[in-house]
Amino acid sequence: MKLGIIAEKIDAVLEGDAEIEINGLESIDNSISGDITFLTNSKYDEFINITNASAIIVKNDFSKKSKCALLKVDDPDKAFGEVASLFYVKPPKRDGIHSSAFISENVTIGKNVTIGPNCTIEKNVTIGDDSIIDANAFIGYGTVIGKNSHLFPCVSIREYCSIGNNVIIHNGTVIGSDGFGYSLEQNGTRKKIPQLGVVIIEDNVEIGANSCVDRARFGKTVIGKGSKVDNLVQIAHNVSIGENVVICGQVGIAGSSKIGNKTILAGQVGVSGHLKVGENVIANAQSGIVKNVKSGSHVMGMPAVDHKNFNKSYAIFLKLDELRKKILSFKNK
Amino acid sequence: MKLGIIAEKIDAVLEGDAEIEINGLESIDNSISGDITFLTNSKYDEFINITNASAIIVKNDFSKKSKCALLKVDDPDKAFGEVASLFYVKPPKRDGIHSSAFISENVTIGKNVTIGPNCTIEKNVTIGDDSIIDANAFIGYGTVIGKNSHLFPCVSIREYCSIGNNVIIHNGTVIGSDGFGYSLEQNGTRKKIPQLGVVIIEDNVEIGANSCVDRARFGKTVIGKGSKVDNLVQIAHNVSIGENVVICGQVGIAGSSKIGNKTILAGQVGVSGHLKVGENVIANAQSGIVKNVKSGSHVMGMPAVDHKNFNKSYAIFLKLDELRKKILSFKNK
Amino acid sequence: MKLGIIAEKIDAVLEGDAEIEINGLESIDNSISGDITFLTNSKYDEFINITNASAIIVKNDFSKKSKCALLKVDDPDKAFGEVASLFYVKPPKRDGIHSSAFISENVTIGKNVTIGPNCTIEKNVTIGDDSIIDANAFIGYGTVIGKNSHLFPCVSIREYCSIGNNVIIHNGTVIGSDGFGYSLEQNGTRKKIPQLGVVIIEDNVEIGANSCVDRARFGKTVIGKGSKVDNLVQIAHNVSIGENVVICGQVGIAGSSKIGNKTILAGQVGVSGHLKVGENVIANAQSGIVKNVKSGSHVMGMPAVDHKNFNKSYAIFLKLDELRKKILSFKNK
Repeated sequence: MKLGIIAEKIDAVLEGDAEIEINGLESIDNSISGDITFLTNSKYDEFINITNASAIIVKNDFSKKSKCALLKVDDPDKAFGEVASLFYVKPPKRDGIHSSAFISENVTIGKNVTIGPNCTIEKNVTIGDDSIIDANAFIGYGTVIGKNSHLFPCVSIREYCSIGNNVIIHNGTVIGSDGFGYSLEQNGTRKKIPQLGVVIIEDNVEIGANSCVDRARFGKTVIGKGSKVDNLVQIAHNVSIGENVVICGQVGIAGSSKIGNKTILAGQVGVSGHLKVGENVIANAQSGIVKNVKSGSHVMGMPAVDHKNFNKSYAIFLKLDELRKKILSFKNK
Repeated sequence: MKLGIIAEKIDAVLEGDAEIEINGLESIDNSISGDITFLTNSKYDEFINITNASAIIVKNDFSKKSKCALLKVDDPDKAFGEVASLFYVKPPKRDGIHSSAFISENVTIGKNVTIGPNCTIEKNVTIGDDSIIDANAFIGYGTVIGKNSHLFPCVSIREYCSIGNNVIIHNGTVIGSDGFGYSLEQNGTRKKIPQLGVVIIEDNVEIGANSCVDRARFGKTVIGKGSKVDNLVQIAHNVSIGENVVICGQVGIAGSSKIGNKTILAGQVGVSGHLKVGENVIANAQSGIVKNVKSGSHVMGMPAVDHKNFNKSYAIFLKLDELRKKILSFKNK
Repeated sequence: MKLGIIAEKIDAVLEGDAEIEINGLESIDNSISGDITFLTNSKYDEFINITNASAIIVKNDFSKKSKCALLKVDDPDKAFGEVASLFYVKPPKRDGIHSSAFISENVTIGKNVTIGPNCTIEKNVTIGDDSIIDANAFIGYGTVIGKNSHLFPCVSIREYCSIGNNVIIHNGTVIGSDGFGYSLEQNGTRKKIPQLGVVIIEDNVEIGANSCVDRARFGKTVIGKGSKVDNLVQIAHNVSIGENVVICGQVGIAGSSKIGNKTILAGQVGVSGHLKVGENVIANAQSGIVKNVKSGSHVMGMPAVDHKNFNKSYAIFLKLDELRKKILSFKNK
């Protein structure tokens, strides 16, 4: 695609040759000749003059020199997304219910629903209009799936769960598995506590691949409207996640904890059971949250504390040997 | 269901109106009118007077005031479990072998076995009486499954593994994948070491969803009788887990380590390879165990140490800046 | 098998009775009578005289006394691998394309390819000679799989991915799921950023069970030649992993980070986004990498720093209470 055409489509001011042929998109550090790239993160400024890209999408006020053609726009990130769409060929959507899927009796299927090969849909399931259940997925007894939701291949959802509208669940994720609950018997064995509750996934939630959301012991485990959950995340029984929460890869949240609206838990964060994490909290990667966290806090460390406190202490920690030597020198006085 | 009937069924002393209609169960902080709830954890005392629940199950000696009806019992936790059962409608059990399952030759299937749709059962597999293999599961060549065990949908078990009686394995869990073993070649590449051993899961073990138990390089990886393993747990080749061990979500145990009976590893704990963790050990969440741990220890931190030592040091760590200032003030004297 | 025959097959000098009947292999601490074992790791020296093994494979220069028969070789580890092969009966390989697999139109299948029961292969897929796609696996539109690769049961690979030659991917692993990318809207909701790139898995890569490799937002997520990835690992969008890298269980690598050749990330390590980790780096278990790491570094801690610095500081950390008391005693002077 000619660079001039791209510039036109994204409404950019072009500084360079409109006839350059663009073959693909890449990050600025990985681009080869024929690629178009973009610049929004100053971490990548060093690549402006060494990139092999043929063109860079930059902000309107970009004033550095570059050997590449430049496309100036208001929002380079958004513009680059639009360029990506120009080059993307969507894989064809499967239509209807595949003959190799097994659909039990008494399943209610809306209009324009796709069910892929080798799926298993148990009794009393309801699937709303325009939803897609991809190949090799499993949906358990009595589960309800809303409209325009997309379950990717190999997703499995146990009985009595409720999945809202416009929900996306990626490959291999498990919804509604039993919570991890046992009573300790006098002989030292553990007796299973029945897990009789459900999982409710509200509208516009997205859940990554190979994550787990356990059903409640009783009542419900909830993921609130618009929340986004990454891959390999563990959400235990009776957890309640608010709206527009962001939960990054490999986070684990133990039983009955509550996470407030718009909170962000970075990768590999752990939250102990029966805690209340407020709204608009940020927990840095690998934080271990072991007590309640107030709304608006920014925490890190294990146990997690205010991130400024942690960082100040950690900087001194790294020089403890010096400090110790000073102290010992006093001693000798 | 009328509250009076519930009180009778769980043998409770009712203080309140027996005619109240109960519609469901919830935790005390999430209850709405018509819910019954319970109180065992003092963390939730603050909710006694603000809960919207219609009734609370409490301990016999409970003496606080409440606007809710009270059901007094010896063990509120157990009684609440019984109430949960009153409201629970079990999904119907699938019977027999589904026509869409693929069963290879020479498979031995006991009495009253269920095999769900789209399963694959390879040659020489044995499945004991009353066991359930749910939809879309895979069982590899020569694997033996005991009696009354339950494999949930999308479980996959490789060849030559042994699963005991009364074992529960949740959705998406993998048993018997290759251990992570390579020899470093002189040219810097890694050469795969064949993983020729097996996995043995003893009786009454439960394993959560999307966990992994690798087969041994040689000999066996073992999970001992009555042990309980949560979701997204990694158990590497040749690991040996004792009896009645509790392994919480996202724990990882590296190759050839041994975990003693009744030990509890909290969420996201890591155990390095070739270690011996004793009996009745408690490792707090996110502990990093890098050397042997004696029986009866309670550890935390990375590297993990005695939890009292860690907590004392961490409290000072959080005030290191103060301490540093004190030291610097001395210096200036 | 007689011990004398084993000694002959592995070219060992036998000190002991060639007529001993060997029934199996085990680690030195777990061996029972009739087992053969080996000794390479000095951690296990204590077992030389208490093991119940009937024979031990040791290094040529081994000079300790033992009640067991000894087989002396140059490389006991390698020799033991050879003995393991003598006892191993390979499960029979499935041949051809199973009738219950669903193969879409326009799929190109090489010679001697195996496709197991209940697989789903979408349109425009290419599978190279001698590759095995095990039961219940899913391969998405337009994905290309090289020669002699092995996808274990329940693997799922999304559209447009590229899997090289001699690649092994274990059960339940997901390749090509959407990256975790959203733009924050003014009303506080998150809007999905389309993930239009691909995943490229180069030759000789092995990936464990239930791991996730996300597709790129644009361009490609890459795992370089000969790299080995363990179970439950998260590799985010646009990550680039070099050649012969070793990534242990439950590691998480956030978006757009680059990992250099031959680097080793131990279990549960986390790497933040947009970072560059050099070549030949070692990161100890549970390290949290939050800034660039130079080639040849050995780091640990969260945030990760030079491991010697961390260990020195941590040793003092564990005695902070003593240090504090000393300081307070000065104060009182």
